[in-house]
Amino acid sequence: MTSSKSSRWSEHTIRRRVQFYELDSAGIVHFSNFFRYMEEAEHALWRAAGLSISPPDGAVGFPRVNATFDYRRPLRFEDEVDIRIRVVALSRRTIRYACTVSVGEAVAAEGQMTIVCVRMGVEPLEAVSIPEAIASRFEAVAADA
Amino acid sequence: MTSSKSSRWSEHTIRRRVQFYELDSAGIVHFSNFFRYMEEAEHALWRAAGLSISPPDGAVGFPRVNATFDYRRPLRFEDEVDIRIRVVALSRRTIRYACTVSVGEAVAAEGQMTIVCVRMGVEPLEAVSIPEAIASRFEAVAADA
Amino acid sequence: MTSSKSSRWSEHTIRRRVQFYELDSAGIVHFSNFFRYMEEAEHALWRAAGLSISPPDGAVGFPRVNATFDYRRPLRFEDEVDIRIRVVALSRRTIRYACTVSVGEAVAAEGQMTIVCVRMGVEPLEAVSIPEAIASRFEAVAADA
Amino acid sequence: MTSSKSSRWSEHTIRRRVQFYELDSAGIVHFSNFFRYMEEAEHALWRAAGLSISPPDGAVGFPRVNATFDYRRPLRFEDEVDIRIRVVALSRRTIRYACTVSVGEAVAAEGQMTIVCVRMGVEPLEAVSIPEAIASRFEAVAADA
Repeated sequence: MTSSKSSRWSEHTIRRRVQFYELDSAGIVHFSNFFRYMEEAEHALWRAAGLSISPPDGAVGFPRVNATFDYRRPLRFEDEVDIRIRVVALSRRTIRYACTVSVGEAVAAEGQMTIVCVRMGVEPLEAVSIPEAIASRFEAVAADA
Repeated sequence: MTSSKSSRWSEHTIRRRVQFYELDSAGIVHFSNFFRYMEEAEHALWRAAGLSISPPDGAVGFPRVNATFDYRRPLRFEDEVDIRIRVVALSRRTIRYACTVSVGEAVAAEGQMTIVCVRMGVEPLEAVSIPEAIASRFEAVAADA
Repeated sequence: MTSSKSSRWSEHTIRRRVQFYELDSAGIVHFSNFFRYMEEAEHALWRAAGLSISPPDGAVGFPRVNATFDYRRPLRFEDEVDIRIRVVALSRRTIRYACTVSVGEAVAAEGQMTIVCVRMGVEPLEAVSIPEAIASRFEAVAADA
Repeated sequence: MTSSKSSRWSEHTIRRRVQFYELDSAGIVHFSNFFRYMEEAEHALWRAAGLSISPPDGAVGFPRVNATFDYRRPLRFEDEVDIRIRVVALSRRTIRYACTVSVGEAVAAEGQMTIVCVRMGVEPLEAVSIPEAIASRFEAVAADA
């Protein structure tokens, strides 16, 4: 969804079905997979904004510096899940997202994730400014929006 | 490691090697896999305490209510990783852990995770007291210990 | 796709995008994930046929007895992949599938998988006849169709 | 294990415990994870032979051209599993392995996998001769050894 005054992107929602290999032996989605769901929505947001987070020969990468989820209800086999991600903070070198995972009206989990821009192929990792071609495509919204 | 005055367990460390299938295309362990590492150490702690967190025909289960990681340095292929987990809070129905992932002296990531005791096979999930046979095996230590 | 003379299902194709967490450090989809893709298409075939392969309180389950893939070309980040699965043999207790994974016209991999019907909750696993309500929904086609 | 007349390696066995996140909702190891187990043993064989299959700045890589498993018995939570891998064919550009996964005396699954040597960073993939420093470390044994 693009904001009203610009072509900057703040949020995106994907819908996907719970797959069998994502379940644990209790028959619910393993808690580690919510982080994969959040990343899946993040990359779809970047595509919606006309970008790839990991293009061939990209000069920068975006490792995660923090990731967290609060779990409210389990997800089960073949549930159709909405994964909504929002940009909630945008600094020179970092982007922070909030994420809501839900089935219909029922919220299953809420997460946050912060990523940092680094130069590719440099060790140790060195934070650099987010290139303007990327930063100019996003705009932060309130976390509780 | 058992505390000095009792047979209660507070922490445990496992060492394991980074596997190829845990890497992402940047050649570092995918951030979601740290949550699997933390759980692997948790289950080893339970085994050290003489328990299984998911025995056949167990009456209770332990879904996660929160999980978080702060990432400091990447892990690479074949790194030998120490995953240390500590019980940092123990309430009637929940256990909170802190986890440190390191390679030698270098800390790669620090996490926390809270689990809640629920009756198996009941929907929706219903929190119940941790059975004494389990609660009596653990003891909380300070998070910064 | 249903066959012309009946309401029996023989094949199904899903399209999905390669996710970042499915890549390995060579930047290509890890070979183990093709088996998850094949299963994803299998379960979509069952849904297309009006079934769930793992319903709540199901009386039977379908463990795999064999699975194989031949890999022809790598899949890369954000590739849009077609996963086509066909029922190529249907016996009293087993179903055999063939699967083709492709990007546009280019075939990335070809696989096969055989599943067997077992009674749920019985150990050791005991093969039983596929229930008529399931068997009647499928029809085998030639493997090279 | 090194053969009696040389310093060439033909097989290796690792022991590891089934992890919770490897299970599916039937409480057994998901069939796709056996391919990860086989790879884990392969890489341990290479380390035993003094090699890394994916060293930093390696000139060649080893994508898989075929992988297959036959499943005999399920693996369950916390099972201690032996994964034995053997080199069963060694050609100028390819290596073929056989793999047996077992718990104690009981065989859970038997697999095979063929890998091909390719130049790194070249697209499309181009098969090249296995470097002598690698080929000289391995020796094929009979598949039924």
